[in-house]
Amino acid sequence: MWYGFAGKLLRVNLTSGEFKVEELDKNELRKYMGCVGYAAKLLYQEMPAGIDPLAPEAKVVLATGAVTGTSCPSGGSYEVCYKSPLTGTWNQARSGGAFGPKLKYAGFDFVVIEGKAKEPVYIYIHDGKVEIKAAKHLWGLNVEETTDTLIRELDDPEISVATIGQAGENGVLYAALINDRGRAAGRGGIGAVFGSKNLKAVVVNGRGGIKVARPKEFAAAIEKAEQWLKNYPLGSIPTLGTVGLVSLNNSLGILPTKNFQETYFEKADQISGEVLNRKYQIKRRACYGCSFACGRYTSVISGKYATPPMEGPEYETVDMFGPICGVDDLEAIIRANYLCNVYGLDTVSTGMSIGFSMECYEKGLLTEKDTEGMPLRWGDGEVMVKLVEKIAHREGICEFLAQGVKRMAEQLGPAAEEAAIHVKGLELPAHEPRSESKVLALQYAVSPRGGCHMHPNWASTWDFGQLDCGMKEFGMPWPPKEVQDESPQKGIAYRYVALQGEISEILGACIFYSWGTEGSCITPQLYAEIVSSLTGWDVTAEELMLAAERSWNLKRCFNAREGFNREHDKLPKRFTKAIPNGPAKGIKVVNLDVMLDAYYEAMGWDRATGNPTPEKLKELGLEFAIMAS
Amino acid sequence: MWYGFAGKLLRVNLTSGEFKVEELDKNELRKYMGCVGYAAKLLYQEMPAGIDPLAPEAKVVLATGAVTGTSCPSGGSYEVCYKSPLTGTWNQARSGGAFGPKLKYAGFDFVVIEGKAKEPVYIYIHDGKVEIKAAKHLWGLNVEETTDTLIRELDDPEISVATIGQAGENGVLYAALINDRGRAAGRGGIGAVFGSKNLKAVVVNGRGGIKVARPKEFAAAIEKAEQWLKNYPLGSIPTLGTVGLVSLNNSLGILPTKNFQETYFEKADQISGEVLNRKYQIKRRACYGCSFACGRYTSVISGKYATPPMEGPEYETVDMFGPICGVDDLEAIIRANYLCNVYGLDTVSTGMSIGFSMECYEKGLLTEKDTEGMPLRWGDGEVMVKLVEKIAHREGICEFLAQGVKRMAEQLGPAAEEAAIHVKGLELPAHEPRSESKVLALQYAVSPRGGCHMHPNWASTWDFGQLDCGMKEFGMPWPPKEVQDESPQKGIAYRYVALQGEISEILGACIFYSWGTEGSCITPQLYAEIVSSLTGWDVTAEELMLAAERSWNLKRCFNAREGFNREHDKLPKRFTKAIPNGPAKGIKVVNLDVMLDAYYEAMGWDRATGNPTPEKLKELGLEFAIMAS
Repeated sequence: MWYGFAGKLLRVNLTSGEFKVEELDKNELRKYMGCVGYAAKLLYQEMPAGIDPLAPEAKVVLATGAVTGTSCPSGGSYEVCYKSPLTGTWNQARSGGAFGPKLKYAGFDFVVIEGKAKEPVYIYIHDGKVEIKAAKHLWGLNVEETTDTLIRELDDPEISVATIGQAGENGVLYAALINDRGRAAGRGGIGAVFGSKNLKAVVVNGRGGIKVARPKEFAAAIEKAEQWLKNYPLGSIPTLGTVGLVSLNNSLGILPTKNFQETYFEKADQISGEVLNRKYQIKRRACYGCSFACGRYTSVISGKYATPPMEGPEYETVDMFGPICGVDDLEAIIRANYLCNVYGLDTVSTGMSIGFSMECYEKGLLTEKDTEGMPLRWGDGEVMVKLVEKIAHREGICEFLAQGVKRMAEQLGPAAEEAAIHVKGLELPAHEPRSESKVLALQYAVSPRGGCHMHPNWASTWDFGQLDCGMKEFGMPWPPKEVQDESPQKGIAYRYVALQGEISEILGACIFYSWGTEGSCITPQLYAEIVSSLTGWDVTAEELMLAAERSWNLKRCFNAREGFNREHDKLPKRFTKAIPNGPAKGIKVVNLDVMLDAYYEAMGWDRATGNPTPEKLKELGLEFAIMAS
Repeated sequence: MWYGFAGKLLRVNLTSGEFKVEELDKNELRKYMGCVGYAAKLLYQEMPAGIDPLAPEAKVVLATGAVTGTSCPSGGSYEVCYKSPLTGTWNQARSGGAFGPKLKYAGFDFVVIEGKAKEPVYIYIHDGKVEIKAAKHLWGLNVEETTDTLIRELDDPEISVATIGQAGENGVLYAALINDRGRAAGRGGIGAVFGSKNLKAVVVNGRGGIKVARPKEFAAAIEKAEQWLKNYPLGSIPTLGTVGLVSLNNSLGILPTKNFQETYFEKADQISGEVLNRKYQIKRRACYGCSFACGRYTSVISGKYATPPMEGPEYETVDMFGPICGVDDLEAIIRANYLCNVYGLDTVSTGMSIGFSMECYEKGLLTEKDTEGMPLRWGDGEVMVKLVEKIAHREGICEFLAQGVKRMAEQLGPAAEEAAIHVKGLELPAHEPRSESKVLALQYAVSPRGGCHMHPNWASTWDFGQLDCGMKEFGMPWPPKEVQDESPQKGIAYRYVALQGEISEILGACIFYSWGTEGSCITPQLYAEIVSSLTGWDVTAEELMLAAERSWNLKRCFNAREGFNREHDKLPKRFTKAIPNGPAKGIKVVNLDVMLDAYYEAMGWDRATGNPTPEKLKELGLEFAIMAS
């Protein structure tokens, strides 16, 4: 075992039913630092262009990082990296809980899954042992049932189970992988990939530790992090959870409503974090080692939306099943969240697919002939909840909804295009890109997994004004508020926002810990201290930025090889118009092209294609990713 | 705050809606040591004979003890003391979980509840503050729903809620009080008492500590206890939970079956602790500070008995809803246990009432005319589960069942008497009194709350042979196996078993920790070390025995004043016959009168009445309990 890492990769071939344990190369790993960075290298090198994401040849990487499972407060994450069946792009889906730490304690930094089992199986990894076990009896069970059954048959209540529900088995293109009962590797359809491989679940447990190179120094760095985090500026994350954003965003007029047609929801006070907290919340929930505990644990006691205790809903989910569908009944939202968790569905794509279909129904593009007589009216919580059930089982109209917004719009023709709110096929999350900073518009356009607000950072941190997240010393234009909307400096600055976020991705850290300033969050400089004392490597913040840049470039290269380029870096048409109502009425997206030009140039990428130049790749030591032209 | 105690008693009058905080008298408290001992004094002095247990005048004491909430591993208990509506006797119902510790952290050793509220209320005790709050919105909710609602409205997920369900509201005579969602103060009908007072729940939380007089010495005593407990002889309690007894007792031929008609259940292997553990258990559950974790946490995933995760079933419950009713379907048993927990029912009395009615149906004493056409056949799990539902709501035939076995038998006439398995109205638990040691037969006859195997000890520990539980030095006839069945020494020896168990009751400790030997359990000598260093009093094992004897005498006095005497110390007729089949075939109860004579004499009680003599009471300093003759 190395310092900070298990030092091992587990490769499981489901076709042959065999697995092997590979020793990692320390220099190679350090080049990418680990987690998503190393997974990007693996998938770039091992998964040639053009493979159907649902074919046996497709590969999946479960990745942990240096801080995963350590006492570093941000270390409860793992990432699932794969080619998305929804978008055809690179995808990475982060999840919290205890799965990542336990995988590492079991002795592996990475698991690479390839092939396809003849019959349903699950993979059981415990303390260095690996078993591929029959899962016929689990097929058809939901996430809760699967978890309960596995705990019993493995006779170990401490296992962490990452499993698909019926949605993944049925090939819903935005099916999720759920670990620890209610934590989702949500976006992009990893659930369908598992289903296509006849892989129901990965189960981990381990009692191994993580060796620390310089324990005193490491303890001091963690202590510093804990002290700094006492000043954490985004106080509502620990108190109200992400759902605190409902009230805030509505007051700013940037709460996506009715499939993004509007940005203000009159009844937001019915579905706010405060109401969730007072009426439905049982307790907060935290990922492994996290003191923020942004997770909620809620239930609905009685009535038509009665729901057993379950993790969530978080902000995205409340907006999706609330304002996006015009629904003002928090109980319907909690029920829909529950169903997504037990069936294994991404709440964002599920909500957006329903919102899209409601808009199409309003416009006459879908009629009751298509919906087995069910009107899809804005605000009808009962219909919404019914649709979630049907999507998981691909029943009736929901065979259509289960494809996601992009494919639905293509089939409905040009008139539906206006309602198709996605980038590269990934439905947008609950963040309005025309908001003050505008930089989120650029992020949506260029994120390697499509319309995403989280990978590799939440560009809107920009809006926080005085929070430099430790980036000042890297030359980030500052303070960002002073950068004019029409200025190309927005594009230049986004490079820093992205790379700072990518540091979390390559360390296996939660991005929430990266927002603040020196003294109030974990800055790249502080991560360098943590990683250095943990691994015994003398890592600087600059080295972390460089490894992050390699990762960020490789993901772009992965997509470039699949045929993506500047043409695909665009926004849904709806955002070329001004916000129509509410407190933010009149605000427009700035000229995206100006920002793209500046961003590509800052990245050292080709302006015309938006892809990394051979020179840039050489400079980063990524010669293998230079494509023959 | 004293050392080891909060030093305060809270008195709540529900009629006036007022409460007051009383300082305890240290010398008075020490005389009884606390918990059940002091509660016995309170109820003896404050609750004259003849009060209807369901009248406003009836009082209830919630009692904690010296070790409650400390790091002493047995300290997760509290006791509810009251006059039982089922038996008319003294009752004390112990429960684990976190309620007791939190009550003490909130600043109170005892809560005395008296009077009757006009409308439903609950009592909220937090950090020395007391509120009597409206509970109209909680009336009609089950235990889970009430707990969830209170967590939300009080906005504190760390509260401990002791609440009744529908059964207590509806006055079922064996309704329980459930705390921490699945821990029951089960026996004797405290739920009905709460219901009669319009009291839905008591909610506690506190962040206060417990002061330790001699911390180093206390830590050393606890460390000794922990070391000793590593040798704990009853290993199946920590591993399989109490339900491990199913297989053991069946193999010995002492598993009560078909309402105690038989003692061997052919299909016991279908419902054993091993099966529960492998197929239904999610995890173990522990009370506050307990390392044994005898609690199970189980669910049934699908099918007609599908059941959400819930605490239990423990051994008693499995026998009651299994062999006692002839049911061999563990899923039906888990479902019935769940319903008892959410509706707030004592599983023992519920199962025995159903078993009794099945025997009456078999014998033609109950027919389908009485049961709305529902046949009550042995082994019918569906009917059994339906009956549990109906008992909670006192529907149809279950208006009759909700009274308990004694009242049912009285109404059915002498022919039903043979099937009425209770002592003083309390239905017997799942322990066969004709088993090897016979001393359990004596315990059932004399327990102050009626047919009870737990208060103040489990007399069957006698069967463990080499386990003296630290009693040798008090002169207990030893080893007990050598005491002949027909010998009066059984009666003499029971005095020690009872008083050793009563030490747990007056300290607020769990009795499970008292079984073993010096070096493998917490003996009276070790408790004396723990209590001395905790309180700063120099308590000896002899002083603990003396306080235990006061408590044990006062409870007998309480019952004597209500009219109970030797005549009532008897066993159901069924046990005067030999065991009819199975491995223990032919075993009979010994002559109870011989044991009674010896026991009364050993206790210093009057042989004719079986009640404490004035001399004995004077010797114990309990002159106030001498009745005018």
